[in-house]
This record gives sequence, C-alpha cells and structure tokens, in this order.
Amino acid sequence: MKALVYHGAGKKSLDKRPMPELASPTDAIVKVTRTTICGTDLHILKGDVPTCEPGRILGHEGVGIVYQVGAAVSTLKAGDPVLISCISSCGKCDYCRRGMYSHCATGGWILGNRVDGTQAEYVRIPHAETSLYRIPQGADEEALVMLSDILPTGFECGVLNGKVEPGSTVAIVGAGPIGLASLLTAQFYSPAQIVMIDRDPYRLEVASRFGATACIDSGVDDPVAKLMKLTAGTSADCVIEAVGVPETFELCQALVAPGGVIANVGVHGVKADLHLESLWDRNISITTRLVDTVSTPMLLKTVHAGRLSAASLITHRFKLDDVLKAYETFGDAARSHALKVIIEVA
Amino acid sequence: MKALVYHGAGKKSLDKRPMPELASPTDAIVKVTRTTICGTDLHILKGDVPTCEPGRILGHEGVGIVYQVGAAVSTLKAGDPVLISCISSCGKCDYCRRGMYSHCATGGWILGNRVDGTQAEYVRIPHAETSLYRIPQGADEEALVMLSDILPTGFECGVLNGKVEPGSTVAIVGAGPIGLASLLTAQFYSPAQIVMIDRDPYRLEVASRFGATACIDSGVDDPVAKLMKLTAGTSADCVIEAVGVPETFELCQALVAPGGVIANVGVHGVKADLHLESLWDRNISITTRLVDTVSTPMLLKTVHAGRLSAASLITHRFKLDDVLKAYETFGDAARSHALKVIIEVA
Repeated sequence: MKALVYHGAGKKSLDKRPMPELASPTDAIVKVTRTTICGTDLHILKGDVPTCEPGRILGHEGVGIVYQVGAAVSTLKAGDPVLISCISSCGKCDYCRRGMYSHCATGGWILGNRVDGTQAEYVRIPHAETSLYRIPQGADEEALVMLSDILPTGFECGVLNGKVEPGSTVAIVGAGPIGLASLLTAQFYSPAQIVMIDRDPYRLEVASRFGATACIDSGVDDPVAKLMKLTAGTSADCVIEAVGVPETFELCQALVAPGGVIANVGVHGVKADLHLESLWDRNISITTRLVDTVSTPMLLKTVHAGRLSAASLITHRFKLDDVLKAYETFGDAARSHALKVIIEVA
Repeated sequence: MKALVYHGAGKKSLDKRPMPELASPTDAIVKVTRTTICGTDLHILKGDVPTCEPGRILGHEGVGIVYQVGAAVSTLKAGDPVLISCISSCGKCDYCRRGMYSHCATGGWILGNRVDGTQAEYVRIPHAETSLYRIPQGADEEALVMLSDILPTGFECGVLNGKVEPGSTVAIVGAGPIGLASLLTAQFYSPAQIVMIDRDPYRLEVASRFGATACIDSGVDDPVAKLMKLTAGTSADCVIEAVGVPETFELCQALVAPGGVIANVGVHGVKADLHLESLWDRNISITTRLVDTVSTPMLLKTVHAGRLSAASLITHRFKLDDVLKAYETFGDAARSHALKVIIEVA
C-alpha cells in the first residue's frame, strides 16, 4: 500500500509499505478513505517529537471503512464506516475510567507517533472499540475528518476548559485552524462576545465569517487596550491560547479578567513567564489539556444535525499521490490561505 | 486610643491616635478585643505593598464587640460580639454577587491597607453587615481570630481551589501557618494522603501532629523522588503552593499528576517560570485566589462544633502594649517557632 513516511527531521516520502496486520484481538484494520494533515505533523517533521521515530507512517486523523477486526471486537464489523479518533484508549485503565483518554496507559496520542498512522491506504487501530466511532448513515464523511482531532481539541481544551457560558466574554488568541475550531464550538454556549486576536488579516476575515463578534489585528492595534475598550473595562472571562509560543501565552495573562480562565490549547516547545506577581490575587485559572475526545459522540451529533459546520474548515483537497503537495500547501498557510486540507485516499 | 502605625518601609510604632468615626451609614465601629499579625503585615513593612501608605494603622484580623453602627446597619447592634473578616465586601457589586468578595468594587482587602486596620483599640469596618460575622454564644473568641484570614485562605485558595476530595493525594509545599491552615482544612474531605514539604524540621513535626500522613524535608530529600515513592509513581492530585517564591512554584509543577491541580496560596513578588513545554498536554490546572471569605460562616460552625482546631495555630500571646515584641517574635519564626501570635487588646 501507499503511505506517507517520516524519515527523520525534514524528511518524508510517499512510500510502498506492507499492509498493516492485526497485532492484538482488540485491534481493527481500517481502509482509510479521507485523512488530513495536522500542525503536529509539521512539528514531527521539524524533529520536535522524539517519540516519533524515522520509518513511522504519519497521520492521526481520518475516516474510513472497517476492513478487518480482531477476535475480541464485537461492536464493529468489516464494512462499517468509521471515524478514527486521534486518541486511542483502552477504556479500562485508571485514566480511561476518569474520562482522561489522552493519558490512557496503553494508548493516548499514539497514531502517527508511536504506531503507524492514517496517511496511508490502511491503518491498524489499537483498542478499536473505544477508539473508532461508527458514522451515522447519510453523514458528510469528509467533514467528519474534522472530528478526529481539531474540533474536539478546540472544544475540550479551549471551550470546556475555558468554562465558556451564556453571556461570557471570550478572547481567542490565534485564528489558525485550532483557534477557529474553538470559535465554532464556543458558539454552542451563546457567549456575549467572542473576540478573535491574530496578526493575519485574512484569518481574521475568516473568523468574522465564522462568528467572531470582533477581531483585533495585533499587528496593528494593542490587543489589551482594544479588548478593554470592547468590554467596557472588564476584559475576558475566558481567554483561549491557540498559538503555543511564550509571547501569546503572556498576552493571555494580560487579557484575563479577575475570576477568569486562560485555557491553553497551543502546543508549547519552551517555557513561558507566568506573572504571579500580578496574578496571585486575581482568582484566575490556567488549564492545559491534551484532547481526550470525550466529546466526539456529541460533536458527531451536532455536525449531523447541522449545528456545527465542520466542513467550513476544509479549504483544499488532494489525492494521496499528491500528499507532498498537500504538505506544502498546508505548511505555507500564510500564502495558500489553507485551513485544513483533505487527502482523498479512496 | 493606641494603635500600631506603619511609617514607611521598615518603620512602625505604637502611637496614640484619635478614635475612628463612622464615615458612611453602612459602617460600624468595633472595639477590638483580640487581633494578630499576618505575613502580609511583614510584606507591608518591607515596603512591598504600595497601596498601604505611611500613617496607616496595620492589621486585618481580629474579633471584638460592636461599639457603634451607622444608620443603615440593621443586622448588627452595639454590644454584639463579632468576627472581623480580612475582606470588606459591599454585597452589591458584580463581583460580590458572584461570591468574589475579594474583588468587591469598593472593598476587598482594604483593612490595614487602604483604610486603618485592627491592630488598635477600635476600628472602623466599612460595609459592616457583609464584613462582620456575629460570634455564637460560648465560642472560643480568641480561636476565632484564625477565621479572619488564615483559615479561610488556606481553605478557599488551597483546599477548595485544589479540589481536594475523598481518596485524593495532596501535597502541600510550605508548612508555615498558611500551609498548616490548608493541612487542617484539607482533612474535611478525607484525602488518602496529605504530604507536607518544608525545609524546617520543627514545622514538619508540627505538621505531623496536625494530621499530615507524611512529611518530606526538602533540605534532606529530593521531594519529587520521595513523593513518587510515597504515591507509587502517581504523584499528587492536588499540590498547594504555600510559600510564594519561584523555586517552590516550580517544585509544584514537578509534583502534580496528570489531571491534577496546583492551587497557589503564596503571595508572589516576582514572576516564575511555567514549564508549558512539559505541562501543555498534562490536563492540569493552576489556580490563584485572594481569599473571598465565602467560607467564613461554614468555618465558624466547624470550629464551634469542634471539627476544626483553630486554636492549635496559636503559639504566643502579647498585650497590645507589647505589640512590637509580638512583631519581633512573629518575624523570627525560625527561632521563636511562632505560628500565630495573639495580641490581647481588651
């Protein structure tokens, strides 16, 4: 089969690889129909993710059709259309029982990291029954690729951790795909204001279309002063960090209101300054989270019911044979204006 | 009347001052019977608290007897024995209505800071009806001085924010009065383990007596390795920072388990490093809080019912005339072994 393989920092190619095989009775083999590329794949290609070794097939998102199941799999069968979760979970360990699937003792984010991933014609899914979701009949399968990672991440790490609620003021720092996923799902809870902050006017324009009530171009305006003006001096109850660098994390500390939350979604490679000298008495919370995908069944329903436009995040489509071009387009989003790129596998 | 007055960094004296007068119909004048000294008073004396100007009578803790009430005060009358809260709250502003009394628009921590405080024979209490608590008959009034600040602070900022619950593992960094207040009140929720970490063997001995299930002398042992051993590799669900310096805040980051909380209680004067590069995917929370004193009525009941030994924090007693000696004793706790010192005013 064809697969996109990581060959060490900076190196990748579309290779011929043997079909995956069942390795445990709880596995399933899925024939991938659609997959996509994540910012994390770019991190891996920079050599930033030491758990991902050369020779690994990348990708942790996608939809497909069950091809084969292990002897212990009873809730899925060959031919079932399924959504692949970026998080594999056994459903049995202490963390899984607490709903913290991201920290599953034998799972977590392993696809396209510690085991071969979804940017291939077939993929082996460990803990299949608790890591795959049957797709309802009549669903827009391509749109559901957005439910493998990006929408639950924006929702769980940003909106749920950020305690967005009716009437609250939300500031989202970073209008990339993940910030937009938070923007889309924050609207479930009818906040009074959702203010989007970025330096890219194009992305802010997209954010406006996606439901932001105001946008701040931080390359032009001082975001703290502008947010204070927009909120009549109260600043934000919920600040979502959707970039992952020290500068934006520090900005979040200046945007949060007393009693508010900074919900970190960004993947950070280095430490950041925490201004406890001004925050110690502000009654704030800072949260971090690797997506648990506990919200996937709910998100499936909202997409299916037309309450969440998952498809709106998709800007480009490529065939698997053109996956290198897909990476190029996704990696150069400033010029290509790519949000999420679909790779059509079958 | 006599009052302990702050005269600028490093300077204080016991002075003669005029009696306080009602300034608003919602004020009360309280005749102070017992007060105490807080670590924050020492911060003020170092010149670290710019809101507190020279000429200010210090002190934000105490019990006393209502001497006079303003025309709008109907729930208190002269002669009522009362507990003075360190937080003054109007009960009417947006923050008060959310229970965030610490951020009251016309109150908060103002006593002994922005207005004259309790280390005096009489004190004016703004917003009297929502800042004083009637003391039940037969109560140990001296012990209740611990309910003005230290016990609600240890409880709300440490135990409540830290989400201590039955079976959880709690680590408290700092066995000073505030860490001990968290230790005492954490036991309301029957955690499985409460591990106390400090460099002072005497304070750890006190912590053992107060109910710590284990103690780590961080001057001798590596607290991270020792906690891992004590918890069979799971580390702490709740880490309470009760010191207020970057080193201890960084230690807390190494002690917290995935899914856990770092509840900051310490007063910080400088920023600290936040290791987002290792914490971004750990599903943790960090909380800060200035005590709201929302738990004061509950704590009054637990002390009165004998479920919380507030008196055990009291190690020394002084007359108001000896208040300078009281400061000396409290400020040199390493040698004096002082926890809280009572000042007998009347």
